Amino acid sequence: MTDGVFEDPANTREEILAATYRCLRNHGYADLTMQKIGDELEQSPSLVYHHYENKDALVIACLEYLLEHFEGKLGRGRVDDPQDRLEEMLDWWFATDVDNDWHAFLTTVLELRAQAVHDPDYRAHFTRSDRVFKESLAAALRTGIDAGVFQECDPDAVAETLQTVLIGAILRRSSTDADVWLEEVHGELERYLESRVYKN
Amino acid sequence: MTDGVFEDPANTREEILAATYRCLRNHGYADLTMQKIGDELEQSPSLVYHHYENKDALVIACLEYLLEHFEGKLGRGRVDDPQDRLEEMLDWWFATDVDNDWHAFLTTVLELRAQAVHDPDYRAHFTRSDRVFKESLAAALRTGIDAGVFQECDPDAVAETLQTVLIGAILRRSSTDADVWLEEVHGELERYLESRVYKN
Repeated sequence: MTDGVFEDPANTREEILAATYRCLRNHGYADLTMQKIGDELEQSPSLVYHHYENKDALVIACLEYLLEHFEGKLGRGRVDDPQDRLEEMLDWWFATDVDNDWHAFLTTVLELRAQAVHDPDYRAHFTRSDRVFKESLAAALRTGIDAGVFQECDPDAVAETLQTVLIGAILRRSSTDADVWLEEVHGELERYLESRVYKN
Repeated sequence: MTDGVFEDPANTREEILAATYRCLRNHGYADLTMQKIGDELEQSPSLVYHHYENKDALVIACLEYLLEHFEGKLGRGRVDDPQDRLEEMLDWWFATDVDNDWHAFLTTVLELRAQAVHDPDYRAHFTRSDRVFKESLAAALRTGIDAGVFQECDPDAVAETLQTVLIGAILRRSSTDADVWLEEVHGELERYLESRVYKN
């Protein structure tokens, strides 16, 4: 999902954001310090402080950078087959054979969402982030409706529903040991889309 | 949801759990200390340490106590009208006019779920907790199927789906400022239940 975003940093700020992202993935949020980011860069932490006031300012800058990347990618991609787009997304999201990187990514997202409980800057970020992902789902739905291949459903309401299930799946995956529900929920979402969105 | 659980503590342990619950609701998890729980009890923190090794042992005992209370309540209640039961649950869960107590409860749940990322004891608790709530949903669905008022759906899969949406709603409510999606998702869940569960 985030492969390649930070592959080719253009300047010091992007290098710092790339190092922050690697540290978050490897150590999580709780153990993240400005010192560790400096170590990852093989630089003194004062370089990091020169650009970002504190750990949270840096983490939010990193999240915003990732979101802008996704926004550009999602916005550019034409939706050729909206049903394929939705199916791919569900397959990817409910995969049971996920690797450690994917799991680490999900748990970090949850840790950062938990910061949003008390920190308005994180809340503002995740409010925007939910809107971006929901809009990309709604765009695929609208494409299908306009092309006459989807039913006349409410694309915003369907997109918000999918978004809420996907976020619920993040929280359940990260906070429990069970995963038998993944296939069951995936199957029920297929049925929901068949009755509400797809034409038979 | 938790009203009355801790109203009449039977012994010191229950008094400590009741104080922990009040502290969690009022101050959240991050600011919770054994000292604050002692203060809430008007006792020295050494009394608290006498019964519980540390803050997390105490918080998990408090969560287990709440879960057992719900389990007893959910298990005892006969489901007279399974459709009413599901509707009430959705109305309650997607209410937009929630009070501060309810909001505080949800954000505390999220904070505690985030602990589960790194702490296997919290994970074990939330794995069990998801199972208890899912089972209560599945029991309502089974009652409806057996009584012939619901379609022959897969009660476990439908229950897991509802459970995942409800948990997604907790995370979105606690980590974003938007709430327009609540009514939209509620409406879509109604449509899903109409097509998959209810008989027309």
